Amino acid sequence: MPSAEAREPEGGMGLERLVFFSDAVFAIAITLLVLEIRLPELEPERVAAELPIALKALIPSISAFILSFVVIGAYWMTHHRLFRFIQAYDARLMWINLVFLMSIAFVPVPTAILGRYADYTTVTIIYAVSLGVVGLLEAALWAYASYHHRLINSQLSDRFIRYILLRTLVPSLIFFTSIPVALADANIGKEFWLIMIPAFILLRLLYSANHSAQSNNSITE
Amino acid sequence: MPSAEAREPEGGMGLERLVFFSDAVFAIAITLLVLEIRLPELEPERVAAELPIALKALIPSISAFILSFVVIGAYWMTHHRLFRFIQAYDARLMWINLVFLMSIAFVPVPTAILGRYADYTTVTIIYAVSLGVVGLLEAALWAYASYHHRLINSQLSDRFIRYILLRTLVPSLIFFTSIPVALADANIGKEFWLIMIPAFILLRLLYSANHSAQSNNSITE
Amino acid sequence: MPSAEAREPEGGMGLERLVFFSDAVFAIAITLLVLEIRLPELEPERVAAELPIALKALIPSISAFILSFVVIGAYWMTHHRLFRFIQAYDARLMWINLVFLMSIAFVPVPTAILGRYADYTTVTIIYAVSLGVVGLLEAALWAYASYHHRLINSQLSDRFIRYILLRTLVPSLIFFTSIPVALADANIGKEFWLIMIPAFILLRLLYSANHSAQSNNSITE
Amino acid sequence: MPSAEAREPEGGMGLERLVFFSDAVFAIAITLLVLEIRLPELEPERVAAELPIALKALIPSISAFILSFVVIGAYWMTHHRLFRFIQAYDARLMWINLVFLMSIAFVPVPTAILGRYADYTTVTIIYAVSLGVVGLLEAALWAYASYHHRLINSQLSDRFIRYILLRTLVPSLIFFTSIPVALADANIGKEFWLIMIPAFILLRLLYSANHSAQSNNSITE
Repeated sequence: MPSAEAREPEGGMGLERLVFFSDAVFAIAITLLVLEIRLPELEPERVAAELPIALKALIPSISAFILSFVVIGAYWMTHHRLFRFIQAYDARLMWINLVFLMSIAFVPVPTAILGRYADYTTVTIIYAVSLGVVGLLEAALWAYASYHHRLINSQLSDRFIRYILLRTLVPSLIFFTSIPVALADANIGKEFWLIMIPAFILLRLLYSANHSAQSNNSITE
Repeated sequence: MPSAEAREPEGGMGLERLVFFSDAVFAIAITLLVLEIRLPELEPERVAAELPIALKALIPSISAFILSFVVIGAYWMTHHRLFRFIQAYDARLMWINLVFLMSIAFVPVPTAILGRYADYTTVTIIYAVSLGVVGLLEAALWAYASYHHRLINSQLSDRFIRYILLRTLVPSLIFFTSIPVALADANIGKEFWLIMIPAFILLRLLYSANHSAQSNNSITE
Repeated sequence: MPSAEAREPEGGMGLERLVFFSDAVFAIAITLLVLEIRLPELEPERVAAELPIALKALIPSISAFILSFVVIGAYWMTHHRLFRFIQAYDARLMWINLVFLMSIAFVPVPTAILGRYADYTTVTIIYAVSLGVVGLLEAALWAYASYHHRLINSQLSDRFIRYILLRTLVPSLIFFTSIPVALADANIGKEFWLIMIPAFILLRLLYSANHSAQSNNSITE
Repeated sequence: MPSAEAREPEGGMGLERLVFFSDAVFAIAITLLVLEIRLPELEPERVAAELPIALKALIPSISAFILSFVVIGAYWMTHHRLFRFIQAYDARLMWINLVFLMSIAFVPVPTAILGRYADYTTVTIIYAVSLGVVGLLEAALWAYASYHHRLINSQLSDRFIRYILLRTLVPSLIFFTSIPVALADANIGKEFWLIMIPAFILLRLLYSANHSAQSNNSITE
């Protein structure tokens, strides 16, 4: 039996604090990524010779930093977008959001591993699974909040709700599909992730085209 | 003699800043937990052989991360809930809150120790004491604020105030009770912590059942 | 010649963002302190024997953590209090605040050194100087903002403005006075810092006593 | 074809959250700088002899900390200023801002390298390029937002918009110009960065002088 607390959604200041806390976790996780980019200690008398090599050796870590920064950034933007429509919260939404934030806070781990051992298939798969789970949890957040307009703006059309759900599922879909690809070739597995960019654009175009034909009101945008 | 400052509670922007600062400390402490999950440096020529072992060796750290993330998350939710009812603050509340935040900021230490040496009784006890103290300080926050409705919404019923106090005491109670259990067996001591989940559900059901019978007004919810 | 920008104080959203940014730096600096409390790597076969020793060896770091947490916490509370009265900002206030925040962000360094080498006079002095400078910068913030009521609530009495200035100067006064004391004995130098507690209480009592006699209006409190 | 989403700017709570997230990334990056200032582990029996040397060896790291703190602080103030005029956002602004924040989050890397190997020309150039890119991205943010008053206060004069653009370009201009200087002499390359201070003052004076002559309205200030 759900408790009174879980049954009665709340808004206002409490919701703002939930969003704020989420933003802070995102900001910290995204900024902590940089801690993995570290120049090794060089012997004082060999700095001149070894510095260029050591700097070059940072490139894979820097690439992993950029990749994860962009992916977390994109997840943040989606979270930002979801909470423009979510107008109330309950205990369950808080727990789903907390587990989602845990998956975000975990991202520095697969990022560090990818930055150091990018050539290994296992590593590509660990990264794909970790980041794919983040996306699934974000989709769960939306699915829970939007189910029968439980916690969202009541004017949103079903079509728009489904469009948002699809968008939140795109990254997971691509990360999970990349796993069999990585089993064949770790590097193609990683390149496969780039499909995300055209996928988002395509989805948006499809929705926009469809949308104009139906002339929904602007609130659903 | 209490000073004028301590005697006169204040609300508004100052209270918001206190809550904000607390949220930020929570968010940072919860996200810093991840820094303890570190892959050791592997010798370049032995990566293929050692990587799977090194990854597997991360599991205890990851378990400790998940445990502490959930526990801090639950403490945050309680804090969030308390400050929905706390409507003013004074110098003493700020100090109690600061000491409470110190106990939150400290959590990465017992978490790191637990992640590395989970099998030792001492380690289980250190974790239980540290996290139990966090709960006691949160209960102190509520006890201070709610005493004679000092700093809270004046419409809250005494019954509801006591219910909230009980809730804030549940984690400490279970963490402290786990200490003698751990002295017998460190692993059962840790499993004992899971009792928290049914304990919260039971407490809520008891309150809800009782509550419906008395038909309090909705503000007390 | 001051620029138009420096001459015209601004309030509102911009001020809120300044306060927010400051709070975030405080929260991060205060939480990062914990990163210095680290259990050394123990040899797997010697954990049982060495763990109690290693845990005991954390005590000085934990003491330094508690000390710095309380001191930064007290500086934060003062900052919180100052900005209840500061109602506008200009470019200069932003710069003074930024240098002040730099001194706050630096606190983990003397804290780490104190946690490791507390018995050395040099270390006590480094800590006292670092934390004393923080206090001076906080006093400078108030001195600048309150000069001729430049950026503060115009109803504050001169007496109250001076009282606040005295309060912000107390920590620096005590930290700097502890330097010659530490030169005689490093440990008495550190114990000397405890004078801060009665000093604050005394100052407040003196002000309150005086205040009642003059019956100022409540806004100046 | 731009999507509907990119075409329709939004304001309100969403904009506030964007600003908040940016502030949090700034605050974290600026505070993480301190993690690079680390006393090496000293042998217990040699602390008395080696501590003064070890402390002195921290000076280059502390200088790099101060430099980057001030530079990030100045970039934050500019960001603060830009968003006093930016009144709406769209998907593209969010992406430009995200890439800008990535460049800010990256600053601890060149800072750490500069703190350790300040005498090397390569290091000076890496620092200048990294920090110069931050400035370019900040200018891009303003150029995008202010183009045809896309997302800014419509009352801002073209002259003021150009003045702000020039200000955001000053740091990049100086950092990039310092590169050929550093190729001649790494230390003069670093001293060259100090030109930023008179450059800002000069630009402001020029604008103010010109401004008074034209008597614009106060909103453009």
